[in-house]
Amino acid sequence: MANIVVKKLNSTPIEELPVEIVERKGIGHPDSICDGIAEAVSVALCKMYKEKMGAVLHHNTDQVELVGGYAYPSLGGGDIVNPIYVLLSGRATTEVFDKEKCETIRLPVGTVAVNAAREYIKNTIINLDVEKDIVVDCRIGQGSVDLVGVFDRENSIPLANDTSFGVGHAPFSTTENLVLKTEQLLNSKEIKKEIPAIGEDIKVMGLREGKKITLTIAMATVDKYVNSVEEYEEIKAKAKAKVEELAKEYADGYEIEVFVNTADSDNCIFLTVSGTSAEMGDDGSVGRGNRANGLITPFRPMSMEATSGKNPINHIGKLYNILANIIANDVAKIEGVNECHVRILSQIGKPVNEPKILDIELITDEGYDVADIEPKANEIAEYWLNNIEEVREKLMTGEIKTF
Amino acid sequence: MANIVVKKLNSTPIEELPVEIVERKGIGHPDSICDGIAEAVSVALCKMYKEKMGAVLHHNTDQVELVGGYAYPSLGGGDIVNPIYVLLSGRATTEVFDKEKCETIRLPVGTVAVNAAREYIKNTIINLDVEKDIVVDCRIGQGSVDLVGVFDRENSIPLANDTSFGVGHAPFSTTENLVLKTEQLLNSKEIKKEIPAIGEDIKVMGLREGKKITLTIAMATVDKYVNSVEEYEEIKAKAKAKVEELAKEYADGYEIEVFVNTADSDNCIFLTVSGTSAEMGDDGSVGRGNRANGLITPFRPMSMEATSGKNPINHIGKLYNILANIIANDVAKIEGVNECHVRILSQIGKPVNEPKILDIELITDEGYDVADIEPKANEIAEYWLNNIEEVREKLMTGEIKTF
Amino acid sequence: MANIVVKKLNSTPIEELPVEIVERKGIGHPDSICDGIAEAVSVALCKMYKEKMGAVLHHNTDQVELVGGYAYPSLGGGDIVNPIYVLLSGRATTEVFDKEKCETIRLPVGTVAVNAAREYIKNTIINLDVEKDIVVDCRIGQGSVDLVGVFDRENSIPLANDTSFGVGHAPFSTTENLVLKTEQLLNSKEIKKEIPAIGEDIKVMGLREGKKITLTIAMATVDKYVNSVEEYEEIKAKAKAKVEELAKEYADGYEIEVFVNTADSDNCIFLTVSGTSAEMGDDGSVGRGNRANGLITPFRPMSMEATSGKNPINHIGKLYNILANIIANDVAKIEGVNECHVRILSQIGKPVNEPKILDIELITDEGYDVADIEPKANEIAEYWLNNIEEVREKLMTGEIKTF
Amino acid sequence: MANIVVKKLNSTPIEELPVEIVERKGIGHPDSICDGIAEAVSVALCKMYKEKMGAVLHHNTDQVELVGGYAYPSLGGGDIVNPIYVLLSGRATTEVFDKEKCETIRLPVGTVAVNAAREYIKNTIINLDVEKDIVVDCRIGQGSVDLVGVFDRENSIPLANDTSFGVGHAPFSTTENLVLKTEQLLNSKEIKKEIPAIGEDIKVMGLREGKKITLTIAMATVDKYVNSVEEYEEIKAKAKAKVEELAKEYADGYEIEVFVNTADSDNCIFLTVSGTSAEMGDDGSVGRGNRANGLITPFRPMSMEATSGKNPINHIGKLYNILANIIANDVAKIEGVNECHVRILSQIGKPVNEPKILDIELITDEGYDVADIEPKANEIAEYWLNNIEEVREKLMTGEIKTF
Repeated sequence: MANIVVKKLNSTPIEELPVEIVERKGIGHPDSICDGIAEAVSVALCKMYKEKMGAVLHHNTDQVELVGGYAYPSLGGGDIVNPIYVLLSGRATTEVFDKEKCETIRLPVGTVAVNAAREYIKNTIINLDVEKDIVVDCRIGQGSVDLVGVFDRENSIPLANDTSFGVGHAPFSTTENLVLKTEQLLNSKEIKKEIPAIGEDIKVMGLREGKKITLTIAMATVDKYVNSVEEYEEIKAKAKAKVEELAKEYADGYEIEVFVNTADSDNCIFLTVSGTSAEMGDDGSVGRGNRANGLITPFRPMSMEATSGKNPINHIGKLYNILANIIANDVAKIEGVNECHVRILSQIGKPVNEPKILDIELITDEGYDVADIEPKANEIAEYWLNNIEEVREKLMTGEIKTF
Repeated sequence: MANIVVKKLNSTPIEELPVEIVERKGIGHPDSICDGIAEAVSVALCKMYKEKMGAVLHHNTDQVELVGGYAYPSLGGGDIVNPIYVLLSGRATTEVFDKEKCETIRLPVGTVAVNAAREYIKNTIINLDVEKDIVVDCRIGQGSVDLVGVFDRENSIPLANDTSFGVGHAPFSTTENLVLKTEQLLNSKEIKKEIPAIGEDIKVMGLREGKKITLTIAMATVDKYVNSVEEYEEIKAKAKAKVEELAKEYADGYEIEVFVNTADSDNCIFLTVSGTSAEMGDDGSVGRGNRANGLITPFRPMSMEATSGKNPINHIGKLYNILANIIANDVAKIEGVNECHVRILSQIGKPVNEPKILDIELITDEGYDVADIEPKANEIAEYWLNNIEEVREKLMTGEIKTF
Repeated sequence: MANIVVKKLNSTPIEELPVEIVERKGIGHPDSICDGIAEAVSVALCKMYKEKMGAVLHHNTDQVELVGGYAYPSLGGGDIVNPIYVLLSGRATTEVFDKEKCETIRLPVGTVAVNAAREYIKNTIINLDVEKDIVVDCRIGQGSVDLVGVFDRENSIPLANDTSFGVGHAPFSTTENLVLKTEQLLNSKEIKKEIPAIGEDIKVMGLREGKKITLTIAMATVDKYVNSVEEYEEIKAKAKAKVEELAKEYADGYEIEVFVNTADSDNCIFLTVSGTSAEMGDDGSVGRGNRANGLITPFRPMSMEATSGKNPINHIGKLYNILANIIANDVAKIEGVNECHVRILSQIGKPVNEPKILDIELITDEGYDVADIEPKANEIAEYWLNNIEEVREKLMTGEIKTF
Repeated sequence: MANIVVKKLNSTPIEELPVEIVERKGIGHPDSICDGIAEAVSVALCKMYKEKMGAVLHHNTDQVELVGGYAYPSLGGGDIVNPIYVLLSGRATTEVFDKEKCETIRLPVGTVAVNAAREYIKNTIINLDVEKDIVVDCRIGQGSVDLVGVFDRENSIPLANDTSFGVGHAPFSTTENLVLKTEQLLNSKEIKKEIPAIGEDIKVMGLREGKKITLTIAMATVDKYVNSVEEYEEIKAKAKAKVEELAKEYADGYEIEVFVNTADSDNCIFLTVSGTSAEMGDDGSVGRGNRANGLITPFRPMSMEATSGKNPINHIGKLYNILANIIANDVAKIEGVNECHVRILSQIGKPVNEPKILDIELITDEGYDVADIEPKANEIAEYWLNNIEEVREKLMTGEIKTF
């Protein structure tokens, strides 16, 4: 296709840059909680639409605002005093109008959304009691659609909802990889079993200077599992040791320095009742944390678009960010590709598989020429444009992560 | 005591009036749901305060607003489309300040309130799924108190919070009794087991004209237990029969006519998903339904004060309404008393057991003189003023009903 | 009509009862603010419906919840720290469906309601700055109607929306009259000009014992007009003097005692920034204060139904309470009538001018017989049942007060 | 300072890249409205804190959620049917505790915030009636601080609140400049006077391919100034002409193509009542639109941090993004600098003028050496680190734009 552009990027590879900064907000960070809820709501709506109408109807539930609660953590176990408040908004199809019968079919959007959000929180922040510690409110806007439109649309390629773009890159640098794996380790089921005091609100900031990586970790602890300051220090030490071990595997050859909860002082440690700072005044929003690849990478191209909660049918802000990452990953596997950046720009009203431009930038390994790689890269891009349905299916089942 | 007044009421006894109107909003009526939540929140706060501070602290949670949801009931089972929204407000002590240590103790008011409300709904509206069909939000205001005050107060008689009054009467008339029992029967566990299609939203309106009582019952049905209009009619018929049977016991000698869901038409029957009209746009508020004795009785003196949700320590609107009913009931048992009305007026800032006036009106049976009854009535009133603590304890455990 | 019943009430006239209690919550009391907003919203919706559709469409906006703010009043002028929160709910017709054109007309319910509420507050609580001191939120539920139905309905008599009743009495007793006039005086434009420090939140409690009337007044003051405790005491003294003067006119021959802000103590006076306790944690709700006649009268029959905010077309809770008061007032003017109580009970689904029963109780002056009065009373009742439209018009323009 | 790093960036200058994408969300875009409100609230709180306490106290009001309303625009003038809902959250100091006097000073955070938001909207979206078309709600969390701390802090350098970073670049490319100027032109007072039909919700997407720039503009129109589809087309044509003229000035030598409202179809044009899509279901959030420099630039390094609404004293997410842009701009003026990227990484708990790393990347013009530029760049960076107070002052007066 004419609008796929593959070109050489004249730039120093990321690993050779003297400095690199990478951040990941863990699943219990207030911003990530919002991303997770938004996506859980979209997945649940897709399921409901499929069951009730046989097709996924229009929705964008990429607006979740979390207003922090008020807590009184205490060694050995404290109290959440005011619940966290979560506002679901966005828009969804609540009515399908059957012109033939002049009848309206109403769809349970509000209840499905509230339920999905509560379930998600229950499964994600395991020490939060959803029956008392959180209020999930819903102001999702209404939308209606003609029954005829629903089935027509099923059989054609959806049209881009906006003039917008998606961005992706591959492969991950050592620092990127390490930052991601660090959070995943500390939030793994195994660690929670071994060290239940580690909460889900974990932020990892990685700074690479030459061959030295500094990991600064802010990690909430759960007060009922921490009986003394000594225990608290032990937990931090254990977490630090686990991460240092991990670094040996993922950043072999680098000097590693790990800091856990550096802001601690005599009268202030990162103690929570529930494992997330959302309990105590830390607010959150969709789309302000990790990008679609799970990271924040100021030395890489990024998109501002929130991926979570958008409909997987025609929302460019979701589809093109996911696609850009998938394409970048596949292209990066081509021999000779050192680094790959993908950007896809839509045209509002055109089929989603016909972007205005799909731009692939490559840093090649020595001895390789972009001209040789181009046909393969082109093929990959075309493949995915033609198989967006595959991506969509994985989004609808929650198989592809969006934050 | 000088401020207890016992006097003859020169009035026709209620049973001899040609007309009488009595109403009861059942536990699933939106207004009653609010009353029930308000009281459940107060009971839960009392318990928490006792546990945490050894004394019940100030609170008034007599403000609950229920905004109806949106539902799509359907024979055989429909959907709630938008959840019911419940706003808890009012005020409670959230902080105790320990001046000696210059330290603040924070109390989990918001979370306890939300939890109590959710539990209450779960146990009361059994076909409502609290994980999806309802949002319980909380804007209960903060209050603080000095630690010293808490313990001082424990040992003295509380002072009236307001210039206000309470009203009660006894005994119940035949119509009053029948209306109350009708709702209690239709909302009994036994009936729910036998006829699960009967929802909790039941409003009973009783009109007595001479010796004829007409009961007009609006009774929600639960759609998943109603598969056809025929079944619906059968359920109505069964309910009608049950009530007619009940009337034989409680209104022997009266002509009884029972109407169930008279507003039904070909295209509109009282079908709900959850058993309450709150699911479909019927809003509710505290204090707009039943009085403290469980009834609305326009032929009797009534108080406007909401009883539910108020603190049982010094809130006149709660204490004096409950007291007035208790005293009226005891006085009504004195030989020769045909009917008894009690009104108690407080003086703000004076001990709650020293009302400005405690007014007892009596209709006596033939051959009895108020002068003979007065000493006994006086004694009863004094007894209860001196034993308010007993009333309070029963309120705090939920033993005394407030609506 | 057969269903109008006029009968003798065998009861002591109110003025001869040894004790009488009467209360009025002034226009700035949180409950009255809610009543006022609810009614203002209904009046505005009626106007909008008339303009847009040529007919008043269905609505009931009798649900307003006011959550008190947080203020820091101070002699000479303090601050409101957190705004008052007002939630409009209830239900209104938001869509008219034109079946012929298969088109939906949408009506600006939410914006009209918010606007009406804000305007009402601005005009009523003159020291409250609606741009910062109050949040007016709206969760009024949606409703739709067929265009055909709208015009059909215009030309027929509306059907009762519920099985419910209205209650009224006349004439006002001396105490009732005095309590009403006291609040109206203190909230008159003249007094606000003369003594700007007097706020709108004024509660008057009247207790009559024999020929002695005690008026207990709780009256908010506006801090920017009160520079010292001395000034505060002067304002109270002036208000007291005004009321005592008024009592000479309206309760001639009675011993009068007036108390203003009896709960004041050294460290607590009734000082506010805005003139209403709503600024500092006092919540309010529709229908919990004054009845349709402006008073709370536990020695009189009352209805629990909120009158304010209900639609004036077919809502019994509004129409029958207003009608009962109008009829009672007219009947009370018939020679020989000492006291008149009116109760009207509806039948759901029947025309509003065909109540199930319209019950008129009369206490007659000596020498008069109910039989002589009955035809005139009957005529009055029939007149008003046939001229409900007149009542409706006055409700729609706000000419009839509802609280 | 040792932690300032200046180094050569081995990369193709932006202007030589074959493709470039740049976006700006205009001031009336829902996301920008949220950014603007958040910043207006912070500016107002700074002012209030200064006035009341002599120092800016801690706050972060970078959480604003806008839930779109529901409107019914119509040629010649339609209606907003449901108001827009705006939720202010975040956190601010509401209490200052004076330990010496054991007294608490309360600060009017909620009312100041609501007022600032309403004022901002009134001045920004000129066709929106804040008295009816918008609800501004507030759940800003509370915070308290010791009086002593306030004054101590005044005289020392604030400590970084978080481990986070800021990013900036300069100079703007031709496309960046053109995109920014296009929105500013269409939202200028002059244009609004000349073509009042142009609303504030304007999104400009710029795509440069070689020497061709395509500007895709989504521009809301205000229905009361648009009487027919013909007029609508004229307005679009006028706007297009204005932008083409502008492009001659700012992108001389480029081929320019301008599209206005390409998504228009026969039955759907971009017509609004108020000039913003927020009226009809388009939601918004802080930090999801423009970066601190006013643009979204996926071909440039970016930070995810929301700048608007954060406190200007010690919040890295605000200060370092602003600083990075200021430093980049100054460095870009040094002779020989073609392009400059600045990234600043904080250390939580360290003085804000001592970042962990301040990284300056330079693309130099031919014939220039980074070594020669480094001392000047260093000096600029040091100057600004030492003069953060100057930046802060400009933020507090609203002189520096944050989105």
